[in-house]
Amino acid sequence: MNISFIGLGNMGLPMAKNLIDAQFNVTGSDLSPSALEALKSYGGTVAQDHQQLIQNADVIITMLPSSESVKSFYLGELGILKSLKSGTLIIDCSSISASVSREVASVAQNLGIDVVDAPVSGGIMAAQAGTLTFMVGGTEAQFKQAHPLLEKMGKNIFHAGASGSGQIAKACNNMLLAINMIGTSEALNLAMQHGLDPKVISEIIQNSTGANWCIEKYNPVPDVLENVPSTQGYVAGFMTDLMLKDLGLSMEAAAEVKSPVLLGALARNIYTLHSQNGHGKADFSSIFNLISKV
Amino acid sequence: MNISFIGLGNMGLPMAKNLIDAQFNVTGSDLSPSALEALKSYGGTVAQDHQQLIQNADVIITMLPSSESVKSFYLGELGILKSLKSGTLIIDCSSISASVSREVASVAQNLGIDVVDAPVSGGIMAAQAGTLTFMVGGTEAQFKQAHPLLEKMGKNIFHAGASGSGQIAKACNNMLLAINMIGTSEALNLAMQHGLDPKVISEIIQNSTGANWCIEKYNPVPDVLENVPSTQGYVAGFMTDLMLKDLGLSMEAAAEVKSPVLLGALARNIYTLHSQNGHGKADFSSIFNLISKV
Amino acid sequence: MNISFIGLGNMGLPMAKNLIDAQFNVTGSDLSPSALEALKSYGGTVAQDHQQLIQNADVIITMLPSSESVKSFYLGELGILKSLKSGTLIIDCSSISASVSREVASVAQNLGIDVVDAPVSGGIMAAQAGTLTFMVGGTEAQFKQAHPLLEKMGKNIFHAGASGSGQIAKACNNMLLAINMIGTSEALNLAMQHGLDPKVISEIIQNSTGANWCIEKYNPVPDVLENVPSTQGYVAGFMTDLMLKDLGLSMEAAAEVKSPVLLGALARNIYTLHSQNGHGKADFSSIFNLISKV
Amino acid sequence: MNISFIGLGNMGLPMAKNLIDAQFNVTGSDLSPSALEALKSYGGTVAQDHQQLIQNADVIITMLPSSESVKSFYLGELGILKSLKSGTLIIDCSSISASVSREVASVAQNLGIDVVDAPVSGGIMAAQAGTLTFMVGGTEAQFKQAHPLLEKMGKNIFHAGASGSGQIAKACNNMLLAINMIGTSEALNLAMQHGLDPKVISEIIQNSTGANWCIEKYNPVPDVLENVPSTQGYVAGFMTDLMLKDLGLSMEAAAEVKSPVLLGALARNIYTLHSQNGHGKADFSSIFNLISKV
Repeated sequence: MNISFIGLGNMGLPMAKNLIDAQFNVTGSDLSPSALEALKSYGGTVAQDHQQLIQNADVIITMLPSSESVKSFYLGELGILKSLKSGTLIIDCSSISASVSREVASVAQNLGIDVVDAPVSGGIMAAQAGTLTFMVGGTEAQFKQAHPLLEKMGKNIFHAGASGSGQIAKACNNMLLAINMIGTSEALNLAMQHGLDPKVISEIIQNSTGANWCIEKYNPVPDVLENVPSTQGYVAGFMTDLMLKDLGLSMEAAAEVKSPVLLGALARNIYTLHSQNGHGKADFSSIFNLISKV
Repeated sequence: MNISFIGLGNMGLPMAKNLIDAQFNVTGSDLSPSALEALKSYGGTVAQDHQQLIQNADVIITMLPSSESVKSFYLGELGILKSLKSGTLIIDCSSISASVSREVASVAQNLGIDVVDAPVSGGIMAAQAGTLTFMVGGTEAQFKQAHPLLEKMGKNIFHAGASGSGQIAKACNNMLLAINMIGTSEALNLAMQHGLDPKVISEIIQNSTGANWCIEKYNPVPDVLENVPSTQGYVAGFMTDLMLKDLGLSMEAAAEVKSPVLLGALARNIYTLHSQNGHGKADFSSIFNLISKV
Repeated sequence: MNISFIGLGNMGLPMAKNLIDAQFNVTGSDLSPSALEALKSYGGTVAQDHQQLIQNADVIITMLPSSESVKSFYLGELGILKSLKSGTLIIDCSSISASVSREVASVAQNLGIDVVDAPVSGGIMAAQAGTLTFMVGGTEAQFKQAHPLLEKMGKNIFHAGASGSGQIAKACNNMLLAINMIGTSEALNLAMQHGLDPKVISEIIQNSTGANWCIEKYNPVPDVLENVPSTQGYVAGFMTDLMLKDLGLSMEAAAEVKSPVLLGALARNIYTLHSQNGHGKADFSSIFNLISKV
Repeated sequence: MNISFIGLGNMGLPMAKNLIDAQFNVTGSDLSPSALEALKSYGGTVAQDHQQLIQNADVIITMLPSSESVKSFYLGELGILKSLKSGTLIIDCSSISASVSREVASVAQNLGIDVVDAPVSGGIMAAQAGTLTFMVGGTEAQFKQAHPLLEKMGKNIFHAGASGSGQIAKACNNMLLAINMIGTSEALNLAMQHGLDPKVISEIIQNSTGANWCIEKYNPVPDVLENVPSTQGYVAGFMTDLMLKDLGLSMEAAAEVKSPVLLGALARNIYTLHSQNGHGKADFSSIFNLISKV
């Protein structure tokens, strides 16, 4: 099976390598010569032009940075959608607006082309290890078609629902993550200001009704857990600015259906404040420093 | 060992019964004749007056509704503290202000009396089953002294730290719980408005970074989980108005040390809005209806 | 001078009429036949097609409902910009994204065409009375060129700054208005719950440091002021859903430059809750009912 | 008429001096020897003990720092209320909890003593100039009785309502002020980030629907207005920590009647963050720096 993989950045390149490891023919495209070189030296093929990306592709996988770039790649003036053969499968792993995902899928459907949106979570290390989480939007049949490829790059592969639902699932999960991380920081800091040991209060909450992923797996207070960003100087991890990008998608999804997200919107702006203070490149759990700062 | 138990309400009575089951002599006091009758018929003794509560008591346990009632009982004009013999152990299970807990403990210490604050979580069913969670503030020695009694009434017994730390731990945990429940409601509602199935999105988040106790054990969307309030018409459970009481304690704790609790304060006011709309007696997970209301 | 006026809705039609009153030749375009009929019977000309809108136009004025409609009208496949003669003045009165305003102006500049963004505030009554407020973005020269026309339709005409600044000024003003209206509602309701008379507390605040336009000119509590929506059953006035539209533009402007708008984002979501509860068509001061609801 | 004045701090001393200027006999009490010395050299009398404060007093005026100090002074073990003669008028100018004000007034009423709560706004300069604003709680008759004294110290004297209403009026006004100041900072910063001149955008908003006291009289952006704290390095003025104290009273008032104050509670915590960052002594308009900080 021939796969064209567009977007060989920090996430895309290791994902493409995992497909090569699984014996697929991978033809790649990226603006960065070094990324292309890396793909080539790992056994992939470098596309010389759009034509080469398209001609023999059974599957197109995109891992692009924005709604605009996805829309342009598929639907723009030079967009490839109209040049693809019927029956091609598109797996868009970009984290973008659900409405753009739906638009691409809708145009594609009329051309006999299947599209699933399949944004990931898990970060660079999971991309390398092939243990990403995929949240997939598309029909049941499309999900089944994409599954054998996704399972080469990831571990948890969820079918979220119809087209766009993968984006929505990620936007909802990450909004909740953003809220939980700030809430956890507020609770831990409050306890610490009253003299409690962060390990002790973390242990108590983890075993009580306040339990959540942040406190158990990604504790924002340094030295409570090993091998998490907070204990390693908040070296990301998951950068504040990437969380901000995702929260922008969450807000866009909320505005589209007029859903109230009071805590979500506040969380977004707390991260904005943190980024403005110069911590955009730090891991998002460094929000603890905004709350606790002396 | 003789135990005097003051406050035989929905929580106190079953706790006292568990102590009777464990072969302690329990003398009880309450304003409600029926509560006293229930204690008596279970094998407890009803105190005729303060004197009887005090005279042979090795341990005093209080389960009272407010900071004022605890302060009045121990330190007021008719307060019992000055009448207790040195060496008495006081276990205050009331959920009250940490500063009142510390004040009672401090006065008691000068009289040679040990006090631990030991607020509970888990609700009426856990009180009956003897599976409460206790968050205990006091010295290591005091914690050890109280432990054999607490384990007759509870399952998870945490030593949070010095005097008042039990209150702080509960205030922090419940503030985080309040935040997580609203955040979870916002995320699930947003997904549902985009057409996702609440069971599917709950399953995805539960296995992702947004995971938290609310989504896994106390899902606010009806029919995602069995045997939770949301599936049973939001019959509490944990009443919105009790959550509001606890959030008042959280805010008081935050103001005392000037800790910012941006999400916590907003969460409190969202529950206030919900209570004002007539849902104070409903389970706190009914906040989902505020967010999702059509 | 020949003016082409595109968008003859509740706002656009009375604005066009005021231009006709001022002896300009106004050629109009709208999707609604009745709007066109109204223009014609008032002395305007109805454009049969795009060509007629363009050919003799010295000035193009647009009053369109969204960023997309403005972008499409000027820059789309059938967009008129490329067909206009050099020297034409465009006055876009639509409330849209500043970045779209800047994009249109930038493309136009290369064609020798001047564009000012000039969103309005004041509502339908001010449009009819010719007392609108205009917030204008463009060069000093462009502002001066547009001024003689704007003063036929409005009273306060501000030069906010460079291209896009009119949109930004409106987005900032209305975000602050949204915040002030909710804050005012919280303050007045709190006083009333403590038994204060709303007229008395309004009088006090109006003469103190909490003074603001909402409390003085648009009090959200019924019967404090005459001739305001709150006293007339919250009949808009300025609809909640229009405020929501403007808050969407404010959030977009904030995201573009990564500015924290904590209160602004929360205000937006409080209005979203209110709209979801069925009050999207009510005047935005009806947010008082959300805060005060018994 | 003999007046006893308790609390001769930054506010109390100039207020007492204004009463001396108006030919009243003022006997003062304070913990600070230098304050007493200042009073004496201005023509006042220094009370040697409580007895001297009480014996000939027709009017007692208190300007104390907290609910606890007022409660203790009037109702505590050494409290003076029980020693006052019937017919004495008490004017409590302290900013404290409305419920404490009501409690003092209620106990006093049974002793035939009149109490009004009369907290002030305006700051030290207004205290010196005799131009304070008083917000008064009590009966109409009590208000009339206090008025001739209050007008010697202030300019705007409002009768807010029954006992405690003075405190509520101040709590509501200052909560709204806190919200407006942050909202104004968010709006101005957003405009400035988009390149608008702060003077221009301030002028526009001041003449539009976002108009409020902060933007017109106390602009938080340096150099927009003269003679305001922002232009003078944010030297208070009205310290952030004093605003925080008042917001604590607002939150207490809201909790007492279960009123939702979503923006108010968030505003409080934004100031908490600012104070925690080391700006508790700076004027509260320095919150602009939190929002705009680069």
